[in-house]
Amino acid sequence: MKFGGTSVADLERIRNVACHVEREVKAGNKIAVIVSAMAGQTDRLVGWTREASALHDAREYDAVVASGEQVTAGLLAIVLQGMGIAARSWQGWQIPIKTDDVHGAARIMSVESNEIAERMDDGQVAVVAGFQGIGPDNRIATLGRGGSDTSAVALAAALAARCDIYTDVDGVYTTDPRIVTKARKLEKISYEEMLEMASLGAKVLQTRSVELAMINRVPLQVRSSFEAPDDPNQNMPDGTGPGTLVCDEEEIVEQEVVSGIAYSRNEAKVTLTKVTDKPGVAARIFGPLAAGEINVDMIVQNVSADGRTTDMTFTVGENELERALKVIEGARDDISFEELKGSTDVVKVSVIGIGMRSHAGVAAKMFQVLADKGINIQAITTSEIKVSILIDAAYTELALRSLHTAYGLDAD
Amino acid sequence: MKFGGTSVADLERIRNVACHVEREVKAGNKIAVIVSAMAGQTDRLVGWTREASALHDAREYDAVVASGEQVTAGLLAIVLQGMGIAARSWQGWQIPIKTDDVHGAARIMSVESNEIAERMDDGQVAVVAGFQGIGPDNRIATLGRGGSDTSAVALAAALAARCDIYTDVDGVYTTDPRIVTKARKLEKISYEEMLEMASLGAKVLQTRSVELAMINRVPLQVRSSFEAPDDPNQNMPDGTGPGTLVCDEEEIVEQEVVSGIAYSRNEAKVTLTKVTDKPGVAARIFGPLAAGEINVDMIVQNVSADGRTTDMTFTVGENELERALKVIEGARDDISFEELKGSTDVVKVSVIGIGMRSHAGVAAKMFQVLADKGINIQAITTSEIKVSILIDAAYTELALRSLHTAYGLDAD
Repeated sequence: MKFGGTSVADLERIRNVACHVEREVKAGNKIAVIVSAMAGQTDRLVGWTREASALHDAREYDAVVASGEQVTAGLLAIVLQGMGIAARSWQGWQIPIKTDDVHGAARIMSVESNEIAERMDDGQVAVVAGFQGIGPDNRIATLGRGGSDTSAVALAAALAARCDIYTDVDGVYTTDPRIVTKARKLEKISYEEMLEMASLGAKVLQTRSVELAMINRVPLQVRSSFEAPDDPNQNMPDGTGPGTLVCDEEEIVEQEVVSGIAYSRNEAKVTLTKVTDKPGVAARIFGPLAAGEINVDMIVQNVSADGRTTDMTFTVGENELERALKVIEGARDDISFEELKGSTDVVKVSVIGIGMRSHAGVAAKMFQVLADKGINIQAITTSEIKVSILIDAAYTELALRSLHTAYGLDAD
Repeated sequence: MKFGGTSVADLERIRNVACHVEREVKAGNKIAVIVSAMAGQTDRLVGWTREASALHDAREYDAVVASGEQVTAGLLAIVLQGMGIAARSWQGWQIPIKTDDVHGAARIMSVESNEIAERMDDGQVAVVAGFQGIGPDNRIATLGRGGSDTSAVALAAALAARCDIYTDVDGVYTTDPRIVTKARKLEKISYEEMLEMASLGAKVLQTRSVELAMINRVPLQVRSSFEAPDDPNQNMPDGTGPGTLVCDEEEIVEQEVVSGIAYSRNEAKVTLTKVTDKPGVAARIFGPLAAGEINVDMIVQNVSADGRTTDMTFTVGENELERALKVIEGARDDISFEELKGSTDVVKVSVIGIGMRSHAGVAAKMFQVLADKGINIQAITTSEIKVSILIDAAYTELALRSLHTAYGLDAD
């Protein structure tokens, strides 16, 4: 069971978490609970490290920031004990969860779960500080923001357990229910689809945690921490809860062609006009961007009208737009173009579904639906299980609703 | 170098601490800095553990509360690095500082200082989280309130180093300068005198840290963290600073008869009138108190006037008065007395000096001075190097000033 920062924001919410744990213990399950820092604490600690020095040592940053999860784990253990449930807290270095030495964004190398498994077999709930492990230098290493999801999946993999991610939504939806009221909660979704959803804008799960679950075949259950902990519907007869199960595609009997529609507003578009169209021009544009560690997502090169110049459009993360423009401007002489334009007035909408592999026409339908609504497509990328398009941000809601209906995803 | 909570209360003060460290590094010293939690943090963390459950597990309490020092150590390391000084933080379990398993009030069993000493030899400042170590159960153990002083002394002992305790006063005074304006800062004081001063009410150092320094012959320097860090007077040619050096009595050339006068307002007086005076009465009174773990300090038994009853007075800690009264009342039938009275309107004043061993008349002078001022003595205890008396709290200032003058302690 993993609970994020808003689910453990204060003692009252920590008590609510303890009730969820109690329910699972009473159902006869052996439980490890992975917790984040109380909401706001991590920001406070990060703020102090920044105040201490602009150029802070990542190892010291880790020592300071990891204390947030340490506190929550201790407090939850105390609350559980107060309810008569055997429990103890575990910090990353105590288990140990071993990481590489990339402090601040470490990767888990191994989880030595013998001792914790033994205690769980004895009926003791293990309360684990998320987001952290211990590096080869014997110092605390954090996994980067959202790392508690990854901690939970890694521990579940080591324990051959199911991993329930409790969050502020009650599952994975076909699309954002705040925009599309007919959005439907998915009972199951495949790892690959979830991975695309996560990386294309859905904020339910961290991309790395889904990857890790997929590699280790950890059943991942997304469910709400704000539902009544003692609701009998929380435990389904088949062992799944009321949320969404992320699992192998083989376990999904009725696979739809399209499972969900994601969108991301954090995109920016860069256009270069009248680029001299000669061999190697793409390398001269994207080489410097790669050297500057700026990720380029979609790329569109217009057909050359006059045979000598062309327009080139690509997208980068919104927060990297300024840097991207500087890099291109710095390489102006080498590239040779007329005008350089940047815009953040765009949104990327993605249609995702494993069914695309065996069904043709998914992309064609998407283009048709948008054309019917008069929405201009500015860029396209596709992969085996998704089609993404870039459109004017003003059409976000219209596009999502139209596509949701067109692919038969609307709730009754 | 050890800095307490008020000395590291915010980033500005942590920067001031870093300047003290810089001065010592520039003077060619190898430095370990022991830090407490930022003022207020420990109370906040303790508050949360209480809110979590009235009956909290001391091991979980330790995991939560020790995070405060962990944060300060990381922040100070970052600040030092920002000033171009090589530094890293160490938590108790990383050194490791090994303790017994009495969580919440653990005793240090050993300090394995090989690795930290090696790093210090390489010129790296060691920033150590105070107040904590690791128990035989591989879990964080805290040393109890004020434990950072003890951490500092234990580490200094392991490193064969001098221990400088930076505090909000600039040394040890002959008595409280807030009451006696003519109080004088002592250049040196013996371990034994300091131990009496600490346990009799002076709040400069923690009793256990002085004991540990005495046993290991660690030179202990008490100095101010609020003086200008770059004052050249901070480094004396003989290696001592401008504060007070706590050391072996052999190192004190001109030993005065009386070194200091301490006082404690945290005393309470209990009086039983007309106690039936028969053999074993003291056992019947103090047995139940001992069983209730109530420490009794001074005891006065009046001479029996009628040969059958006597009055009995004793003192306990102010915060244990209520419990003491209950215990005595509960044993009323067994003890047999008329009236039971409790009062917190008393103060204990103690005259301390190693010179008493070879000088008679110190106690007699004390009684004479107080008699001259019309101050009634309610109880007396003595040891080899101190005389303590209990008086009406209203006379505290008068008693302190009169005794300070009488023993020749006044500054010019």
